[in-house]
Amino acid sequence: MGAPGKNDYATEHVKQEVPPATPEEQAELDTMYKRMDDLHLKPLWTQIGGLMPNHPEPRAVAHKWDWAELLKLAQRSGELVPVGRGGERRAIGLANPGLDGNTYISPTLWAAIQYLAPGENAPEHRHSQNAFRFVIEGEGVWTVVNGDPVPMRRGDFLLTPGWNYHGHHNIATEPMAWLDGLDIPFAYQMDTGFFEYGTEKLTDESTPDLSRSERLWAHPGLRPVSFPGKTSYSPIGRYAWEHTDAALNDQLALEEAGYPGTVAPGHAAIRFSNPTTGGDVMTTIRAEFHRLRPGASTTPIHEVGNRCFQVFEGSATINVGDKTFEANHGDVINVPSWQKWNIVAGSDGVDLFCFSDTPIFEALNLARTFTPEGI
Amino acid sequence: MGAPGKNDYATEHVKQEVPPATPEEQAELDTMYKRMDDLHLKPLWTQIGGLMPNHPEPRAVAHKWDWAELLKLAQRSGELVPVGRGGERRAIGLANPGLDGNTYISPTLWAAIQYLAPGENAPEHRHSQNAFRFVIEGEGVWTVVNGDPVPMRRGDFLLTPGWNYHGHHNIATEPMAWLDGLDIPFAYQMDTGFFEYGTEKLTDESTPDLSRSERLWAHPGLRPVSFPGKTSYSPIGRYAWEHTDAALNDQLALEEAGYPGTVAPGHAAIRFSNPTTGGDVMTTIRAEFHRLRPGASTTPIHEVGNRCFQVFEGSATINVGDKTFEANHGDVINVPSWQKWNIVAGSDGVDLFCFSDTPIFEALNLARTFTPEGI
Amino acid sequence: MGAPGKNDYATEHVKQEVPPATPEEQAELDTMYKRMDDLHLKPLWTQIGGLMPNHPEPRAVAHKWDWAELLKLAQRSGELVPVGRGGERRAIGLANPGLDGNTYISPTLWAAIQYLAPGENAPEHRHSQNAFRFVIEGEGVWTVVNGDPVPMRRGDFLLTPGWNYHGHHNIATEPMAWLDGLDIPFAYQMDTGFFEYGTEKLTDESTPDLSRSERLWAHPGLRPVSFPGKTSYSPIGRYAWEHTDAALNDQLALEEAGYPGTVAPGHAAIRFSNPTTGGDVMTTIRAEFHRLRPGASTTPIHEVGNRCFQVFEGSATINVGDKTFEANHGDVINVPSWQKWNIVAGSDGVDLFCFSDTPIFEALNLARTFTPEGI
Amino acid sequence: MGAPGKNDYATEHVKQEVPPATPEEQAELDTMYKRMDDLHLKPLWTQIGGLMPNHPEPRAVAHKWDWAELLKLAQRSGELVPVGRGGERRAIGLANPGLDGNTYISPTLWAAIQYLAPGENAPEHRHSQNAFRFVIEGEGVWTVVNGDPVPMRRGDFLLTPGWNYHGHHNIATEPMAWLDGLDIPFAYQMDTGFFEYGTEKLTDESTPDLSRSERLWAHPGLRPVSFPGKTSYSPIGRYAWEHTDAALNDQLALEEAGYPGTVAPGHAAIRFSNPTTGGDVMTTIRAEFHRLRPGASTTPIHEVGNRCFQVFEGSATINVGDKTFEANHGDVINVPSWQKWNIVAGSDGVDLFCFSDTPIFEALNLARTFTPEGI
Repeated sequence: MGAPGKNDYATEHVKQEVPPATPEEQAELDTMYKRMDDLHLKPLWTQIGGLMPNHPEPRAVAHKWDWAELLKLAQRSGELVPVGRGGERRAIGLANPGLDGNTYISPTLWAAIQYLAPGENAPEHRHSQNAFRFVIEGEGVWTVVNGDPVPMRRGDFLLTPGWNYHGHHNIATEPMAWLDGLDIPFAYQMDTGFFEYGTEKLTDESTPDLSRSERLWAHPGLRPVSFPGKTSYSPIGRYAWEHTDAALNDQLALEEAGYPGTVAPGHAAIRFSNPTTGGDVMTTIRAEFHRLRPGASTTPIHEVGNRCFQVFEGSATINVGDKTFEANHGDVINVPSWQKWNIVAGSDGVDLFCFSDTPIFEALNLARTFTPEGI
Repeated sequence: MGAPGKNDYATEHVKQEVPPATPEEQAELDTMYKRMDDLHLKPLWTQIGGLMPNHPEPRAVAHKWDWAELLKLAQRSGELVPVGRGGERRAIGLANPGLDGNTYISPTLWAAIQYLAPGENAPEHRHSQNAFRFVIEGEGVWTVVNGDPVPMRRGDFLLTPGWNYHGHHNIATEPMAWLDGLDIPFAYQMDTGFFEYGTEKLTDESTPDLSRSERLWAHPGLRPVSFPGKTSYSPIGRYAWEHTDAALNDQLALEEAGYPGTVAPGHAAIRFSNPTTGGDVMTTIRAEFHRLRPGASTTPIHEVGNRCFQVFEGSATINVGDKTFEANHGDVINVPSWQKWNIVAGSDGVDLFCFSDTPIFEALNLARTFTPEGI
Repeated sequence: MGAPGKNDYATEHVKQEVPPATPEEQAELDTMYKRMDDLHLKPLWTQIGGLMPNHPEPRAVAHKWDWAELLKLAQRSGELVPVGRGGERRAIGLANPGLDGNTYISPTLWAAIQYLAPGENAPEHRHSQNAFRFVIEGEGVWTVVNGDPVPMRRGDFLLTPGWNYHGHHNIATEPMAWLDGLDIPFAYQMDTGFFEYGTEKLTDESTPDLSRSERLWAHPGLRPVSFPGKTSYSPIGRYAWEHTDAALNDQLALEEAGYPGTVAPGHAAIRFSNPTTGGDVMTTIRAEFHRLRPGASTTPIHEVGNRCFQVFEGSATINVGDKTFEANHGDVINVPSWQKWNIVAGSDGVDLFCFSDTPIFEALNLARTFTPEGI
Repeated sequence: MGAPGKNDYATEHVKQEVPPATPEEQAELDTMYKRMDDLHLKPLWTQIGGLMPNHPEPRAVAHKWDWAELLKLAQRSGELVPVGRGGERRAIGLANPGLDGNTYISPTLWAAIQYLAPGENAPEHRHSQNAFRFVIEGEGVWTVVNGDPVPMRRGDFLLTPGWNYHGHHNIATEPMAWLDGLDIPFAYQMDTGFFEYGTEKLTDESTPDLSRSERLWAHPGLRPVSFPGKTSYSPIGRYAWEHTDAALNDQLALEEAGYPGTVAPGHAAIRFSNPTTGGDVMTTIRAEFHRLRPGASTTPIHEVGNRCFQVFEGSATINVGDKTFEANHGDVINVPSWQKWNIVAGSDGVDLFCFSDTPIFEALNLARTFTPEGI
C-alpha cells in the first residue's frame, strides 16, 4: 500500500491512444456533443474516469470540529435564537468542507450539536429520518419518544428511529448540549424523507429515572414475551452509560487475564445493537463505543462507508488518509469512504463514541474493507 | 370449544359405508394383507385415523413430578451411586407415563434432576444435543462450558448448547441439585445424536463470580465488536437471576402504571434470547420465566408443541386438558401438544420457569395456537 | 474410516470401573430403582450409551422395495378395495423393517404407492402434513390442489404442501400408480398433525395441459408481480419432466465441454426449489433428481437425516452401510441417518428421483456430513 | 389527494411567529453566522424546510427521452468515436434535466444507450457497480460475463452484477444498440465504486445459442445441486424474451379465464428474480416487464424511489406528477420519487420494460407507497 487512499491492487486507467481529431472531425464532434446536450444526454467516454474511479474518491474530506468552539457557538445561539416550531431545534450542523456547503458530515450522515437552555422545550415532530443522540456531558434533559420520557445523562446513547414522535425539554438549571446524528443527507439525496408535526407541548413531562423502553428491553439477553418478533430498529430508547462502561471494562479485564474479547491489543469496543435481531440499532446507522488503553492503537484500515468519532474522555491522535488530528474531549472527526484510518491513544488512553453508515452498505452487499498491514 | 383436547372446527372422520366382505372376499383380502406384511408394506386405509388424527392426539400425558420426592431420590442416589466416566452424570430423568417407559418428558424433550455432592466432579464431554440447567435452589457448583467456568446459583438459567464441552464440580460443603433440560428424545428419534468424551478433570477449576461469556455478552443491547455475526445458539452461558427478577418486576410495575409490557393482566413473562439474533437461546429449546400476581391467571391456549413448567416460588393451579395439578416449589408439570392449558396463581402469586420445543415447530412452519376463549 | 457406520473420530464410551455391589448395596439400589419406577423416573447412568450414542445409530435399516411387487399388490388392492371417504386413498405404505411395524420408511418420512383405477376419484381433504407425488410411469390422473387441476405425467414431480385441499381423479382408460411421499411419521411423533375433510367430489374436474400454478410460476427466474413476498412452500404445483430432463442434460453437456455444473464427474443433479426463496419445496422435505452416466458413481458420504431413492430409468448398484442393492426401474431404497452410501450407475446409466428430510436438520442447525474418502 | 406531488396527510410547516430582529440583534446574529461559516457549521433552523420536506421533493424531474433521437445520435457516435480502452464503452447516458448536468436519470440510477458496430469489441473490465442490459431491438452481440458468452437478442434482459468481468463484441453485419442500466450515481454519491481493467480481447469469442448461466439456472424451479446456498445477485445471465413473453401471456390468459395472476385488470407484470433467493436480481436494482391490454391502465401510485420505463412494443400515455408523456417504441421515461404515476395503454396495448432502485429502500425499511384512489 503506497500513498494514503490509493488502491494498489487495481490497474490504473490507461487511455487508448487515439490520433487527434482533424478540424473537420472536431467540428462534427462538436455538433454531435451539442445535440446531445440539447437532448439531455452525455457520453460515457468523456467522463468515465471521474464517475467510475478505481476506488472510492470521496469529495468529502477528513475534518476535525473542535468541541470547545462548538459549545461556544451553541451557547451564543442559545442567547440569540429561540427554539420552537418551524426551526424545530437549536441544532448546529457540521458541514463537511468538501461537500459544497451542504450540512453533511458525510454524503449520508448529519451531525450537529444541539443546545437546550433551562426550561426550554423542543416541540414534538416525527420524520422518516433515523436519529440518535450521544451525551458528551451534562444532564437534565428528557427526550420524549413516542410518549416515553427518556433521561439524557453523560455517556448515554439515545435512539429516535424514523417515524417516532419526539421532543425534548430541559428541567435543569443549567443548559445542556449533546451530539445529534441523523441520516438526513441520505434521505435528502435519495428522496426518502417525510416529516410531520406533533404536539407543541411534550406529551409526557414526567422525568423518570429510566425510560419505559429500558424497563422492558434493557435486561441482558431477556425479552418480553409480550413483544415477540423482529423490529427494524432497536426498541431500546436509551443505552445507559453504566452498561457501556462496564462492558468495556470487562473486555479489558478479560484481555488482561489472557482471554479473547478485545478487537485488538488494548482496544475494547462494543456495538449498540437491536435486541430483536442482534443487528444494528437502525437500518442506516451503526453506533459503537471504543476504549483504548494508554498508547494503544487500532489496526489501520480502509472501509467503504463513513465513520465519525467523538472523543468522550482522554485524548488521541487520529490519522485519516494523509491527515493527522489531535483530538480531545468532545472533538468530532470524520473518516471519508476508503480513506485509511487508525487511532493512537494518548497517555491517559481514550474513550470514543463512533457512528457510521455501514449498515447501508452491508445491506446492499457493498461493504468492503482492506487492512494494508494485515490483521 | 367442547371437551378438552377436542378440535371442534375440524370435521370428524366419517367412514364410507362399505358392505361387509363375503367370506371369499375376506380370504382374498387376507392373502393380500399377508403378502403386504411379507414385503414390509402397510395399507393407508386401515390406519389413517390413527396416523393422521384431526388434531394432535399425543400419547404423552400431562403429569406432575413432585420436587420433594425428586430431591429425596436424588439424595439417595448420591449415597448409592458414584458419578463418573461412563454414566457421566448423576441425573434422574422424568419419564412421561404415556411414552412407553422412555425417559422422555415429551417426544422431544428430556428433563432430569441432577445432583452433585460436595467435592464431586462430573467429567467433561460434549454432544450434539442441546442442554440447559435451571437452578431451583442452592449454589456452589460451577459448570465449565468450553473452558469457561460458569457459576450456578438460585434462579440462574444456564446454557450448554450442542457440541460445547462441559463438566461440573461442586466446591461447596452442601450437595446441590438442579433441573437439566435437553433435546435427547428428539435427537434419539431423529437420529441426530453425536457424543464425545472430553477430559476427566475439569479444564478450568477456578470459581469466578461471573462467567467470561457473561462479561462479554450480558450487557443490555451491547455486543462485542470482536464477535460480529449471528450464531445458532446464544453466547450467554448464564442468565443470572437478578436480571430475570428485575425484568419481571419492571413489567409488573409498568402494568401498574398503566403501560403495556405484561402478556396478560397480572402475568409478566420474559423469554431468554440469543443476543446475536433476538431468537431463541438454542435451535430446539425455548426457555421463559413467568411471574403471576396472586390470583392472576393465564389465557387458556392450545399450542402445537410441548411445554414444561417448574414452579420456582409460590404456588399455582395448573390446568392441562382435563387434569388439574396443584403445584408448589420445584414441582415439574408438562403440557402435551395441543392440550389446552392455563395457570392460576395461588394466594402468594407464582414464579415459574418454563421450557418448550416451540422453536422446532416455528422453524418448520408447523407452529399453531388456538385460544378458545379469544385473547 | 473403518467399518460402515462407525464414527472413527469420536472416542468410544469407556465405562468407569466400579466394584460390584454387595448384596446389601444391591438391595438398596433395587429399592431406589423401584421407587424411581413408581414415580416415573429413570436414571441416566443406566441408559446413556443407548440414548446418546457416539454417532447416530438408527433403528431404521436400509431396505429395497421392489417396484414390480409393489405394482402387483397395488393392482390387487384396486380389485379388492374401493377408494373413498374414510380410507381416503388407495395407498400402500413402505414400512421400514427396523421401525416396529410402523409405516415409516424413516423416522420422519412416509412413502407409498398410490393406485387409481380408470374413473376413480380420491375425495378432497387437507392436512398439516406435507406431501409430494412422483410419477414413475403412466398418465391420465389430475390432482386438484386448492382447486387447481394439476396433470400427472411420467417424470413429473408434484407438490401438495400442508393445509392445501387436494383430491385426485383418473380420467384415462388405464389405471395409474405413483409414489407418494409425506412427513406423516414426523407429524405423528412430534404431534403436529391436523386433518380436515373437503368435498367428496373434486372442486374442478377440468383436465388442462398445465396447472394454473405452473402458468403463474414455472417460468425461469420470473415471478408474478401480483404475488410478492416469500412463502414457506413452493407455489409451483408441478415440476414437469421436460424441464427436469433438460436441466440434467445441460449439466452433462457443460461437463463434457469442460465447465462446472455437475456434482461430481458424470453425476448431474437438480434440486426442486421454491422460487420465492430459493430454498426447499417444503419445510420438511427436500426433493432432487439425479442422473449418472454409465458407470459413474457418487462420492461416498455419511449424512445426518434420511434419504430415499426411486430408480426412474436405467439401473444402479446402491451401497448403504454394509448392504448392497441392485436397483431397477421403480425400485425404492432408503438410506438411514449417518449410514455411508453411494451409487454406481449400471451400463446404461441411471436416473433417480430422491427425497429426504434434510430441511428439518438444516433449519435446526443439526445437519452434518462426512465424506470419508474426501471430496 | 390534491395537487400532484402534494402530501395531504402531513401537516404543513408553520413557522413560529418571531418578532423581526433589531439592527443590533441582527448584527450579533450576522457575527455568529459568520463564525459558524468559518468553522464549517450550519444552523438547522435556517434550512430545515428544504432538508426535511414533508414528503420527498425530488430535484429530479420526470422526462421522456425519444428513442429515435437516441438511436440517431448513437449511430452518429459510431461514425465519429472509436470504442476502446479508456472510454471503455460507446454509451450515451440519459441526464435528468433536474440533476445539475450529471448523467443521472435518477439520484441512484444511470441509463444509457450503448451502440456497437459490426466487428467492434468493447474490452473487458469489472467494477462494483451493478449493471443490466435490455435489448429493445436487434441481435448479433454477445456479452461475455466472467468468461461466459451471453447472446443478446430482442426482448432479452441481461445481467452484469458488480465485480463480474465483462466485455461485448458484435459479430453481425448490422450495428446493434441497447439500453444499459447501472447504479453508477448511487455508487458515486455513496463512494462505493471500484473499477478494474480486464483483458483487451474477449476471454471467450464463441457465440453459443444459450449462455452457460442459462443452461445451469434457467430451468423453472430447478437448481443445480452443485451450487447450493444464496447469492447476492442472480446467477442467471440472460432472461430470454421467450420466457418473459410466455409468462405475461399466461397471466392474461388466466385473467380471461377468471383466475388471479394479473396486477390489476388488463395489467400483467413479471419481476426478474434471483432463483437462489426469490428476491431481486441485484441488491440495488429491480427489473420488471409489464404488459397492458389495449386501453388498460395501471393504478395511480406514489412510491419512494425511482422507476424508469422503456416502451418495448405498442404505445402508452404515461402520467407522472403533472406531466403527461406519449410514449412509443424505445422511448424512455423516468418517475422521480413520490410523484404519482400511472400508465394508460394505447389502442394496441403496450409492452414496457421497467427498472427501479426499490431494493435499496426495501433493504433499509424506507420503502413506502400510497395509492390515493385506493387499490
